[in-house]
Amino acid sequence: MPDSTPGARPTLEAVAARAGVSRATVSRVVNGGAGVRQPLVDKVRRAVEELGYVPNHAARTLVTRRNGAVAVIIAEPEFRVFSDPFFEQQVRGISRELTAHDSQLVLLWVEGPGDYERVARYLAGGHVDGALAFSVHNDDELPSVIHRTQVPTVFGGRPGWPGAHGELAVPYVDADNRGGAREAVRYLVSLGRRRIAHIAGPRDQTSATDRLDGYRDVLLDADPELVAHGDFTEESGARAMAGLLERRPDVDAVFAGNDLMASGALRVLRERGLRVPRDVALVGFDDMASVAGTTDPPLTTVRQDIEGMGRLMVRLLMRTLNQDEPGAGAPGSVITPTELVRRASA
Amino acid sequence: MPDSTPGARPTLEAVAARAGVSRATVSRVVNGGAGVRQPLVDKVRRAVEELGYVPNHAARTLVTRRNGAVAVIIAEPEFRVFSDPFFEQQVRGISRELTAHDSQLVLLWVEGPGDYERVARYLAGGHVDGALAFSVHNDDELPSVIHRTQVPTVFGGRPGWPGAHGELAVPYVDADNRGGAREAVRYLVSLGRRRIAHIAGPRDQTSATDRLDGYRDVLLDADPELVAHGDFTEESGARAMAGLLERRPDVDAVFAGNDLMASGALRVLRERGLRVPRDVALVGFDDMASVAGTTDPPLTTVRQDIEGMGRLMVRLLMRTLNQDEPGAGAPGSVITPTELVRRASA
Repeated sequence: MPDSTPGARPTLEAVAARAGVSRATVSRVVNGGAGVRQPLVDKVRRAVEELGYVPNHAARTLVTRRNGAVAVIIAEPEFRVFSDPFFEQQVRGISRELTAHDSQLVLLWVEGPGDYERVARYLAGGHVDGALAFSVHNDDELPSVIHRTQVPTVFGGRPGWPGAHGELAVPYVDADNRGGAREAVRYLVSLGRRRIAHIAGPRDQTSATDRLDGYRDVLLDADPELVAHGDFTEESGARAMAGLLERRPDVDAVFAGNDLMASGALRVLRERGLRVPRDVALVGFDDMASVAGTTDPPLTTVRQDIEGMGRLMVRLLMRTLNQDEPGAGAPGSVITPTELVRRASA
Repeated sequence: MPDSTPGARPTLEAVAARAGVSRATVSRVVNGGAGVRQPLVDKVRRAVEELGYVPNHAARTLVTRRNGAVAVIIAEPEFRVFSDPFFEQQVRGISRELTAHDSQLVLLWVEGPGDYERVARYLAGGHVDGALAFSVHNDDELPSVIHRTQVPTVFGGRPGWPGAHGELAVPYVDADNRGGAREAVRYLVSLGRRRIAHIAGPRDQTSATDRLDGYRDVLLDADPELVAHGDFTEESGARAMAGLLERRPDVDAVFAGNDLMASGALRVLRERGLRVPRDVALVGFDDMASVAGTTDPPLTTVRQDIEGMGRLMVRLLMRTLNQDEPGAGAPGSVITPTELVRRASA
């Protein structure tokens, strides 16, 4: 029955039968030929050519010695993929671009730092051609663990770990967090707002500190009391807003470090009877459809192309893998532009 | 800097340096030794022993020729892991049990059937010791694709595909869907309800048809008009409930095939001014915390141990992998018990 599937491509079995070898041998040859004696390798390659229909990928693998697979590793104290729309969109972009390169997305599950040694073993085992990693916190050990495996890796987000600009430098893809923040704050200034607060994300994440830097670029002499810190969750945005109102009840605008914190701030503003945008104008960051489009009023926010960044990570990795090819330059990192999206909240 | 990490285990580099070979050679030996000449294999094994600190896993791999990794494959027309709490809980159980076996969870991303050939290549490439698969729809090609790779596999959910009890038979783990449905319906009967409807799931999923069979076991002569079909989404439950009320406005109880459809039915009942449970008693299936516990009134439902089923899938797979060991019997499938959880809706 398996072979009667309409439109099915020829199977390893067909090649094995033609070559007079086991499936395992065919599989080993298709995956690089390690440990297979040369006469058998030749037999299998002949069968592959004679059958003619072998998937492009396998034929290419015979030449490139690639696995046709790329690992995705998301380091978080708690595995947030399920609940975080940011990772969902980024992994979706990665998946689509890898499919375009006929490469399998292999998500290596991480529940915590205790899993890193095992992840490193899998990477070092030669099962993937490269890795795409998200290491959010600056004190995370993952980058150094991955570095040791010597597997080509592209990071999502600007690295902030010690050595990130020296021996642990890696290519990465990020949005222009600082430029986007500047645009958001300048816009609030252009609306005539004068007491503009910022709800920043965690101090150990570059996406948070870069946005805070962008805020300070525009408001060089802002009162430090106008800056509050959250952890990118809705609840932390609410808490930060409550603190701001206590310290500076005269605040007339808030730039929140992401949409979720903006949504929490909005809730507190409403509870206190403050009108958005009339009393307090509000701008978020991300343009997450499930947040920015559904608040009341809808959020003015800084859009970043999250799925597009996922796709770029794959393209950058593929360039890294092809570096040996003549004419290929060493790939650098990529900063993607952001865009202010104006809705009703500011 | 990488090697100065406090408490770090010895790296492949250390072994390579001691053995006087490349990292790649050490990695190949640790992963089975394919394609490495015997003198080098011996050198590496000696270095491994001399350094003494080599991770247990690698030492074991030298003996067992295992990769220390298990693939998880979820076949869905659209990749639902992100939005479906059922898969989230099951993968969490799998992850924890694999960690207990020091094995890496490798999620092979699938966006649709077009990806199956690529997934099969990765499986056949010898990168994992086994696979855990969820193939929900009976006409899905995934089981046959996996069968061809000859990788030991345990399925989540009772297989309903053609050949599932013949050449495509596989070990699986499922809840006692039929028995759980019987208990739910018997409970509604015991409350004195006489016109008990069932909102069933899709006709091509065994979890849905088994629950429908359980309903029919108890209500042998139920009016066929009392059965409606949904697709396990909240919205489909609402539609099915509206249809039921049109055909049989005298309905006095509903057993929904899952909690999400029960939640949709509840919404329609309320819109029509019908009180739950006084006018219509309602029972769901799953006991999904994010649904059953948050409806008003909270749902009486049939609880299945979703995380536990994930753990069982791993244990069953590990038994399959150890079948060559003396004294190990061939593993069968496992049906886990369900439990009626009584809350306010019935």
